[in-house]
Amino acid sequence: MFVRFALTADLSFSGEIPGEAAEAVEKTVTDSNTVMFRRGVPKGATDDEIGRITDWKIEGNTLSLTIESGPYTRVHDALFRFRKQITATLGRFRLGLRDIQVTGYEITLTGPVPEGLKVPTLPFISSAEVTAEKIELSLQVSATDLEQKIPDRIVKLIEEKMEALTYGGKGEHWELLYESEKKERFFNGDPTAEMIERGWIKHALSRGQWIHGPQSVQLFRAFEQIVMEEIITTLGFTEMIFPKLVPWEVWEKSGHAKGVYPEIYYVCTPKTRDPAYWEEVGDYFKVTGKVPIDMIREKVDGPIGGLCYAQCPSFWPFVQGQTLASDCLPIRIFDRSGTSHRYESGGIHGIERVDEFHRIEILWLGTPEQVVETADKLHAAYKHLFDEVLNLEWRSAKVTPWFMAQEGMLDGEGVNERIGTTDYEAILPYSDSWLEFQNVSVNGDKYPKGFNVKVQTGKDCWSGCSGIGLERWTAAFLAQKGFDMNNWPERVTALVGEQKELFKFL
Amino acid sequence: MFVRFALTADLSFSGEIPGEAAEAVEKTVTDSNTVMFRRGVPKGATDDEIGRITDWKIEGNTLSLTIESGPYTRVHDALFRFRKQITATLGRFRLGLRDIQVTGYEITLTGPVPEGLKVPTLPFISSAEVTAEKIELSLQVSATDLEQKIPDRIVKLIEEKMEALTYGGKGEHWELLYESEKKERFFNGDPTAEMIERGWIKHALSRGQWIHGPQSVQLFRAFEQIVMEEIITTLGFTEMIFPKLVPWEVWEKSGHAKGVYPEIYYVCTPKTRDPAYWEEVGDYFKVTGKVPIDMIREKVDGPIGGLCYAQCPSFWPFVQGQTLASDCLPIRIFDRSGTSHRYESGGIHGIERVDEFHRIEILWLGTPEQVVETADKLHAAYKHLFDEVLNLEWRSAKVTPWFMAQEGMLDGEGVNERIGTTDYEAILPYSDSWLEFQNVSVNGDKYPKGFNVKVQTGKDCWSGCSGIGLERWTAAFLAQKGFDMNNWPERVTALVGEQKELFKFL
Ligand SMILES: Nc1ncnc2c1ncn2[C@@H]1O[C@H](COP(=O)(O)OP(=O)(O)OP(=O)(O)O)[C@@H](O)[C@H]1O
Ligand SMILES: Nc1ncnc2c1ncn2[C@@H]1O[C@H](COP(=O)(O)OP(=O)(O)OP(=O)(O)O)[C@@H](O)[C@H]1O
Ligand SMILES: [Mg+2]
Ligand SMILES: [Mg+2]
Ligand SMILES: [Zn+2]
Ligand SMILES: [Zn+2]
Repeated sequence: MFVRFALTADLSFSGEIPGEAAEAVEKTVTDSNTVMFRRGVPKGATDDEIGRITDWKIEGNTLSLTIESGPYTRVHDALFRFRKQITATLGRFRLGLRDIQVTGYEITLTGPVPEGLKVPTLPFISSAEVTAEKIELSLQVSATDLEQKIPDRIVKLIEEKMEALTYGGKGEHWELLYESEKKERFFNGDPTAEMIERGWIKHALSRGQWIHGPQSVQLFRAFEQIVMEEIITTLGFTEMIFPKLVPWEVWEKSGHAKGVYPEIYYVCTPKTRDPAYWEEVGDYFKVTGKVPIDMIREKVDGPIGGLCYAQCPSFWPFVQGQTLASDCLPIRIFDRSGTSHRYESGGIHGIERVDEFHRIEILWLGTPEQVVETADKLHAAYKHLFDEVLNLEWRSAKVTPWFMAQEGMLDGEGVNERIGTTDYEAILPYSDSWLEFQNVSVNGDKYPKGFNVKVQTGKDCWSGCSGIGLERWTAAFLAQKGFDMNNWPERVTALVGEQKELFKFL
Repeated sequence: MFVRFALTADLSFSGEIPGEAAEAVEKTVTDSNTVMFRRGVPKGATDDEIGRITDWKIEGNTLSLTIESGPYTRVHDALFRFRKQITATLGRFRLGLRDIQVTGYEITLTGPVPEGLKVPTLPFISSAEVTAEKIELSLQVSATDLEQKIPDRIVKLIEEKMEALTYGGKGEHWELLYESEKKERFFNGDPTAEMIERGWIKHALSRGQWIHGPQSVQLFRAFEQIVMEEIITTLGFTEMIFPKLVPWEVWEKSGHAKGVYPEIYYVCTPKTRDPAYWEEVGDYFKVTGKVPIDMIREKVDGPIGGLCYAQCPSFWPFVQGQTLASDCLPIRIFDRSGTSHRYESGGIHGIERVDEFHRIEILWLGTPEQVVETADKLHAAYKHLFDEVLNLEWRSAKVTPWFMAQEGMLDGEGVNERIGTTDYEAILPYSDSWLEFQNVSVNGDKYPKGFNVKVQTGKDCWSGCSGIGLERWTAAFLAQKGFDMNNWPERVTALVGEQKELFKFL
């Protein structure tokens, strides 16, 4: 793809630009075109790839410019470099720059355009024409928009969309790392159905949401205890509490704001806490027995963010903007203080795919080497846990999540090639399919960069995380081991203890 | 207050009502007025207090009625009793009832009207006139609305509003139950400020929300452990997991839908999971670095409910519609699986009044006697815990929450007088004020009734709950004991262990 920019702008000054200033302006334009705009441009670049003022005109207070460029010293960069020069030049005539009006902005992308490309609908794009060879955009932008590099981001976005159309069909990259032995299978039913039947769980009143009775929680807590002993204590992770309501600012910095929307439970706040403002809502309920949803919709602000999706982003404001001393690294922490919520696809999935779930999130940060080392130790501890303690039939595989594929973070060497996610999967005999029950990710500098966290050495700060889904562990365990405790590994049986039958319904 | 109702309605039949039917209609009206409408009416009621048809007319297919009443056999009840009779009467003329149109509905409430009374704004109320002596309402209602007893609920609501205006100013009823000895105070600072200073906590990016570092969590977990040993294990409570997203249906049944709105964090769902539908939102973020809130607002449904407010309502669907066997009672359970969220009043309150908090919720149900007995045991165990284990300066007081005051549930005798809430408060030396750090409630049959739960004997089913706020415990403890662990009770010091200093910022 070859990119061209063209811009017209009116620069208004504090008074009429006198005839005798024309020569000085002419010289500033020439200097800019031949010197200023060429700074930082790669050697081989051709003239028409570099920003240049192709026309200018003085009328009253106004200097009108036409600027064109290819990929180097793009027209808006040229505009701001020129602003600096011209301010000095006309300053000598006692004229001050008052305003910049961008009167036109065109972008042309030339090269094969993949079929199905849709130009984004954005307030900045006033018109777009797409053919098989070319994309032509007209933008409606202010000088502030240009300072915020809106055109560059639009170009990047369109290039990403083209890439997605070209390579997107290939889906996630998946590479087997380890596969356990086959294990004896003690059950071939659906564990969720059996748990319901036994009264261990009951569907709650919201989508993909369960109430867990004593027996189910005993199993959750047994797994939690095993994680505490085999992972947390052994590798020295320390408990923290990460918030569970996630405001936009967190996802803007973590990068989730790029594309997490279809699966989010959104959160809105009351426009006011004034009881009088809310009285009619309660009144409506008292008279009809129903909550008036449309009335409430008008009385809330936001959404201000959403419910916990990935669990670790909420930690980062704790270290945001800080530089970490080398001798406190690596930092190893975890959180188990609340629920995660995802608007999963509809239909019935059982406890293995729910909208509200419980996860232990493990997080570590430090130098790239420390982060990779911690990931390796975790993998080894998990392997021991699943092979020896839980005796599961499982496998692990390296997968490439969307954001990293998108950001081209994968083409690394050395520690860089370790960036990515390893999924842990267990076989579900009843459906003969593999279920991801947890993962381990090395996230590179994604989070430290997003939250501006540095390490003392000034070198890269990296982080990693691992999400242990208790519903998924339970589903995998029961699907393979069944409900007869005699077939369970000793350690689990001991930790569960006597199964509690609390409720007796008539 | 004296209430009068007047209704006009057109009853349409399947064909013209013949002249010879008039006599039969006349007789049905008389029978209704003198017999049917008098069924179930208290002895002393005067004629004009009881529903009666005061006028009727036949025209073509239509029988038009005027009905008037006081509080007994209200006009809509009269209408439906008459419907049964007239259907039989005109059935003999081979005419079937096709439709009932309510053409007018007036309610008059006579008696002193408290100043400031505002008639609710509801779709059913087409006009309202309020003077010092009288309220006159015109309703726009369908026969279905009448079957759902909308007029009765409107009258009840207005009576409640008048009561609130008359007694509301008095606020919550508060009665001291116990006050501990004065205890030595080791600190007179604000514990939140000191925790921030020491790096134990840091404000997160949403309102009233904190990230807890290792030292704070060590204290939370020490308290949790003490609760497990002194309360949970001793009194035999069993862990369950209650959902944390609360759909309207739960709050409709629990009664919270009457008035919880000003403090709720509301939850909305995506209109669809289709990524194409959400693409423009991610595009906007990628180009501007900001999430487009207004765009998202148009793309979500709901609110479908809100975030956990009171923690126990979500349990009840587990037993909804069930009858519990006597020999499984009392049931004693608890939940500590996630966060609670309240839109508290703005400003800075420290960790003692936050928007996102962590609570252990204890719940029990059974016969009234069992529920009161469990509450008594809890009170005794808490007393021991605060006096002997934590050595706090605290008090307890019986308070009357809004819903019970409103529902007149307080004028009971025997176990009934035990219905209500006991707040546990601790002195905060730095502000010389008392902080509610937990409570114990005996809720009577409120929840079992709302969720239709019965006990085997057919007698009343009651429940109780107790909310242990970990932020509040921590605030109270540190405010009194300070940060020097030498001044802490031994058991707390032992459970906390070595305080973990994980982070070192440059
Ligand atoms: N809907 C869910 N129900 C239960 N647990 C879940 C759910 N989604 C995620 N988890 C848990 O959180 C962990 C980390 O989340 P991650 O985003 O990697 O899952 P995912 O890739 O979306 O999984 P899947 O592809 O199965 O939807 C998972 O390994 C799993 O243990
Ligand atoms: N905003 C909050 N921050 C921290 N804990 C809270 C908060 N609101 C309630 N809690 C905890 O939950 C328990 C039960 O909630 P309850 O509704 O009785 O509180 P409340 O009456 O609203 O308290 P307050 O009057 O102080 O606002 C409280 O005793 C406290 O431990
Ligand atoms: Mg998923
Ligand atoms: Mg409160
Ligand atoms: Zn994570
Ligand atoms: Zn409760």
